[in-house]
Amino acid sequence: MAHDEAASGKKFAFVLLAFQVVFIVLFGVFAEYHWDAKPQSHRPADANGLVKGVRQADAAKSDAPYNPDYAMKDFYPMFQDVHVMMFIGFGYLMTFLRKYGYSSLGINFLLAAFVIQWATLMRGFLHMHDGKFMIDLTTLLTADFGAAAILITFGAVLGKLSPLQYLIMALIEVSVLEVNEWVGVKIFKTLDVGGSIFVHVFGAYFGLACSRVLSRWEYSANGFNTLKYTTKTTDLFSMVGTIFLWMFWPSFNSVMAPAELQQRAVINTYFALASCCVATFICSFLFHHGKISMEMVQNATLAGGVAIGSTADMVVNPYGALIIGFGAGVLSCVGIRFINGILESKLKVHDTCGVNNLHGMPGILAALISAVVCATASESVYGSSYYKVFPSLEKTEENENPRTPLLQAAWQLSALGMTLGVALLSGALTGSVLRLKIFDPLPGPAMFDDEAYFAMPEDVPPEQEREIRNRLQSASRSSYELAVPLSGKPIAFTRNNED
Amino acid sequence: MAHDEAASGKKFAFVLLAFQVVFIVLFGVFAEYHWDAKPQSHRPADANGLVKGVRQADAAKSDAPYNPDYAMKDFYPMFQDVHVMMFIGFGYLMTFLRKYGYSSLGINFLLAAFVIQWATLMRGFLHMHDGKFMIDLTTLLTADFGAAAILITFGAVLGKLSPLQYLIMALIEVSVLEVNEWVGVKIFKTLDVGGSIFVHVFGAYFGLACSRVLSRWEYSANGFNTLKYTTKTTDLFSMVGTIFLWMFWPSFNSVMAPAELQQRAVINTYFALASCCVATFICSFLFHHGKISMEMVQNATLAGGVAIGSTADMVVNPYGALIIGFGAGVLSCVGIRFINGILESKLKVHDTCGVNNLHGMPGILAALISAVVCATASESVYGSSYYKVFPSLEKTEENENPRTPLLQAAWQLSALGMTLGVALLSGALTGSVLRLKIFDPLPGPAMFDDEAYFAMPEDVPPEQEREIRNRLQSASRSSYELAVPLSGKPIAFTRNNED
Amino acid sequence: MAHDEAASGKKFAFVLLAFQVVFIVLFGVFAEYHWDAKPQSHRPADANGLVKGVRQADAAKSDAPYNPDYAMKDFYPMFQDVHVMMFIGFGYLMTFLRKYGYSSLGINFLLAAFVIQWATLMRGFLHMHDGKFMIDLTTLLTADFGAAAILITFGAVLGKLSPLQYLIMALIEVSVLEVNEWVGVKIFKTLDVGGSIFVHVFGAYFGLACSRVLSRWEYSANGFNTLKYTTKTTDLFSMVGTIFLWMFWPSFNSVMAPAELQQRAVINTYFALASCCVATFICSFLFHHGKISMEMVQNATLAGGVAIGSTADMVVNPYGALIIGFGAGVLSCVGIRFINGILESKLKVHDTCGVNNLHGMPGILAALISAVVCATASESVYGSSYYKVFPSLEKTEENENPRTPLLQAAWQLSALGMTLGVALLSGALTGSVLRLKIFDPLPGPAMFDDEAYFAMPEDVPPEQEREIRNRLQSASRSSYELAVPLSGKPIAFTRNNED
Repeated sequence: MAHDEAASGKKFAFVLLAFQVVFIVLFGVFAEYHWDAKPQSHRPADANGLVKGVRQADAAKSDAPYNPDYAMKDFYPMFQDVHVMMFIGFGYLMTFLRKYGYSSLGINFLLAAFVIQWATLMRGFLHMHDGKFMIDLTTLLTADFGAAAILITFGAVLGKLSPLQYLIMALIEVSVLEVNEWVGVKIFKTLDVGGSIFVHVFGAYFGLACSRVLSRWEYSANGFNTLKYTTKTTDLFSMVGTIFLWMFWPSFNSVMAPAELQQRAVINTYFALASCCVATFICSFLFHHGKISMEMVQNATLAGGVAIGSTADMVVNPYGALIIGFGAGVLSCVGIRFINGILESKLKVHDTCGVNNLHGMPGILAALISAVVCATASESVYGSSYYKVFPSLEKTEENENPRTPLLQAAWQLSALGMTLGVALLSGALTGSVLRLKIFDPLPGPAMFDDEAYFAMPEDVPPEQEREIRNRLQSASRSSYELAVPLSGKPIAFTRNNED
Repeated sequence: MAHDEAASGKKFAFVLLAFQVVFIVLFGVFAEYHWDAKPQSHRPADANGLVKGVRQADAAKSDAPYNPDYAMKDFYPMFQDVHVMMFIGFGYLMTFLRKYGYSSLGINFLLAAFVIQWATLMRGFLHMHDGKFMIDLTTLLTADFGAAAILITFGAVLGKLSPLQYLIMALIEVSVLEVNEWVGVKIFKTLDVGGSIFVHVFGAYFGLACSRVLSRWEYSANGFNTLKYTTKTTDLFSMVGTIFLWMFWPSFNSVMAPAELQQRAVINTYFALASCCVATFICSFLFHHGKISMEMVQNATLAGGVAIGSTADMVVNPYGALIIGFGAGVLSCVGIRFINGILESKLKVHDTCGVNNLHGMPGILAALISAVVCATASESVYGSSYYKVFPSLEKTEENENPRTPLLQAAWQLSALGMTLGVALLSGALTGSVLRLKIFDPLPGPAMFDDEAYFAMPEDVPPEQEREIRNRLQSASRSSYELAVPLSGKPIAFTRNNED
Repeated sequence: MAHDEAASGKKFAFVLLAFQVVFIVLFGVFAEYHWDAKPQSHRPADANGLVKGVRQADAAKSDAPYNPDYAMKDFYPMFQDVHVMMFIGFGYLMTFLRKYGYSSLGINFLLAAFVIQWATLMRGFLHMHDGKFMIDLTTLLTADFGAAAILITFGAVLGKLSPLQYLIMALIEVSVLEVNEWVGVKIFKTLDVGGSIFVHVFGAYFGLACSRVLSRWEYSANGFNTLKYTTKTTDLFSMVGTIFLWMFWPSFNSVMAPAELQQRAVINTYFALASCCVATFICSFLFHHGKISMEMVQNATLAGGVAIGSTADMVVNPYGALIIGFGAGVLSCVGIRFINGILESKLKVHDTCGVNNLHGMPGILAALISAVVCATASESVYGSSYYKVFPSLEKTEENENPRTPLLQAAWQLSALGMTLGVALLSGALTGSVLRLKIFDPLPGPAMFDDEAYFAMPEDVPPEQEREIRNRLQSASRSSYELAVPLSGKPIAFTRNNED
């Protein structure tokens, strides 16, 4: 009953409060501003060697004293694009559900704001320098990247969990995610500039495993998916998310690339997304009884950004980007039209937003493509940027046994394998934890319904409104003598009755 | 009657026209491009000393000839973020009212476009060089900042004034605002990088005083606030404003900071907003019968950006930012849940959008925090950036008697006091001016209703539409022979009846 | 019948597929990354002379080795602004139609994604270097500019064509557009930094000519325009487009200007748009029975950006920008109120979105203004930037007979004349091609109706939903024993009946 929900709401509030307090304490103990955000005088002598951004490109040729302003110039505009993708992009993308708009936006907002703090901590713990970790603009960026994975997972279980379940899920996922990425980058030396493997594949399959374990008989009850219905209005809101994600994806895929490779990453992503959009409309007409499906337009158009994510800064050439994007669009539409149903009926994996189609399969595709591109990499093509793109192939003190292109390709595939394994396993475990009654599983009838946890707007029927307005009318003469002392003459006022 | 409104609309148009003509004349007489926007050859020899942005950071180390392109690189992306906050952020934030969406967006749009011109002039008059003032990118930025205050005030009186009243209010407010800020910055040497004192506190309390004086019996009439009801759709539109404000607030708080302090301002604001969002959901569950209140999500989540505004570029440390943001979120929710009603019933201050909760109290909090941070400032913490953050503490020719940190703290509080006083007084005076009949006070029944001044869309019932479409149908055969001369074969067409 | 549409949808899909395949092949044969996006080692010795952006400003004073990173800093943030204008701006601007929102957004999305590829190719063919053309960030920018013209044309015929007709129209238009611009820039040496002539005038009159030739008796059928009705919700969506276009227009008008002229272009556009917005509200009150017309607010407020487009980077002075913007706003409102009807009834030109008012006439105004500004240009005003603004006036090896200001003015007018002629002619020809039955002209009753080509959301009446939820309820006890094995105790749950 409503009271139950209220109680669970209050419980959620206290859990959330507890975590926020812990976060504040941990930040107090371990976090400090990065040198970039500190006065020059507080920087160690060797700081210049460590600073970010333009310097990577300039370090070689300039001995100018470090200018902290650079980091802002390098990252800030793209950081804001990524920020928009997280909060507007994912938030509105999920508002398509007729009765779950408040939750999609609100919970997306809360989870993201919660996760960027936790991701900052987790990541910081993995990059400690003498008992402290440092925060600069790239920290905020990577925190947003972490949030992306959680929001993808959120899409898989959207509408089927209680706020507390969402929160615990996010908490566990971020912890595993950051470790998995750390291993993938530090040990596997995986190349994944757009996070297709460590963000999209991880987020999607963590969510699917989670959803599988949380599977309940209701999911297959007659008419369950009817509760996912949309309206023209909610579809238009959802498109706000789609289009902002689509437009800013080049920022997502290039912001982490070395300065001089960013432009190539932008170009590749731009064209991959263009042909992916075209592919989506083609498939929609062919797979959907000759009509355009808004579900495909809202989701499949974005698959190109995922599929090019691991190779965005490599030389795939513009036509290659078009092919990759086109393939991703087709793959995503095939997923929506044919695979989704099988997952649901055969494997009992209920995927509310179809994250397998938008993030899962295209992410796997991205990893496979990256293996091929690495395997075929040659110095003749990359010239002076060869080792900038493929650092693991260069012989240096830290890297005594440089890899061959083929070996790097193998490592790319291993990273995919590891990520799939870790995501599925940890997702399943998380799901079984979330089954605990203590996390207030959502009663069946409350699924896909804002009402369970949101205060709904009161309904004011026209006659009630008219009655109120008339009340203001009736006395408005005197009101005017009160309200406008400098003039005795009242204002006559009659409403048009076509109100 | 409708005619009355039409007449008042026309009157408004002529007043608006008069102001626009005056603006054009004043711009013609007094405004010129800043050197940044002028050819190098037209710059005085000492111009380099005066140019903005990167140069502040580079001036020390570079003697390169001035590059006007810098100003764009320094400010443009953040300027656009701020621009979005004004027109999309504030505009959509106020569309929550079921029947006042056109007005919220439209009047917001008009007032902002009007005010950025007037603010440019007012500010220019306060910064004249031999009979002229100069316009560059930072001029546009500060004009947008001025607009912010007016849009905050707009939120306090939203739905209760006529367009003419809104306009006169904005006109007066900008004049006072710019003078108050000029005094605060030049004489008080107040530190307020994010404008929490000079924009948020001023705008909020000017609006509340205005609303108090304009108070009418209707405000307390039975059911008056029922007219403020929202719908799911208007709440989703309102969230567009909320989220864009939330995302771009780091730009608002850092754009005016010296280049090398910007990154710190971004980091502090980012984390303040994150914990503020979490705090809002906690309070919402606890204060609102265990449910999430969209009103709180739409407003209180932003309070953290206001509360950190005066100290964003100072060393409050990440955990400090989290605490400030959390406190602001709680304060704002307390305001919405408990204080709003008291203001309205006891003090007869009707605050449509609750600007006291989002801008007023958090702004005061920001000023208090700035006093504490100034009082405890020490060179050991700020190192080489000490005098960049606290210029008034440095002994120079212009500043022969440098302040002590404690003295600066006192000045921060004085600036708050002055701003509160000026805002309340000028707001009250403005309110009493707006009571004049000549400004067409809004008839009670027309409050919170677009219909008073906007042309409403015609209602087309389904049967009428079907009838029209059938008319196009009936003759479509012949139409086709006309329309497609190259083919005699007509297209058959029957509509699905589930239209 | 629905089947007809399905068939036409499938046909469209195959045509689209064919084009995408051809695009991929052409990119494979002719496109390569620009040096900016290539490793340094792959750049010809003289590449530095050719690279973009900051270098234009720095080339003189710096011999620093080329930093590819510059191009990103110069163009990326503004590129994203322009990108937002194309996909969110134009897309949402056209969602005002009650029953055509999916199409406005969806087809806008598809056409833009299709056109940016085709525009890249067309433009590339006009700028080949030994059998290849190069792609960098400015290529993406100019591709977006090309898309703008197509989306303007789309507005003129919105709701009246089939997807296949839209596609063919876009395909032809881009080809002509790029050639016209190439001639205008290379031979006429036209100054049109914001594309008012080559984008706005071309797009608008191509569309109007197209619409005229496609004219059908239905257009003048009783109640036809009633099908264009809006709702409060669709108007609010439309404003999303309006405001994003309005805010980011300064980026559109300045991104292509030489680095040191950008700031002036931003200032001029900013003030032109501000006074244009004010002018729109004035005219709306005066022309629209004393009420504000959302149609005017959605469209006329933007005319100032078009009118200042050709002279944005010239010295028109702030007051000049205000006058130009104001004039454009008035002109646009006059168009909406008085000229639109005449075009429709007398000239049989049906202009769905009124592109003549927003893009056509203001674009012509922009060209006329540019002629005046060129004619009156003097070195005393522009100083050292004189030849940067007016390169054709400088005597160089390539330019042995420099033009006089008056001559440049004449060329500006010729460019307008050529563009008008080419647009009208090619638009008319395109229209007559589109009349071919093979392109599946839209049946009259299907106009302004998403249903013709989009799958509509299923309608779920409240009782059906309640019935489904009850089904989930009834068994939820057992469900809980299944779902939460660790606890036998079921959750009681009763829905509030005010669902």
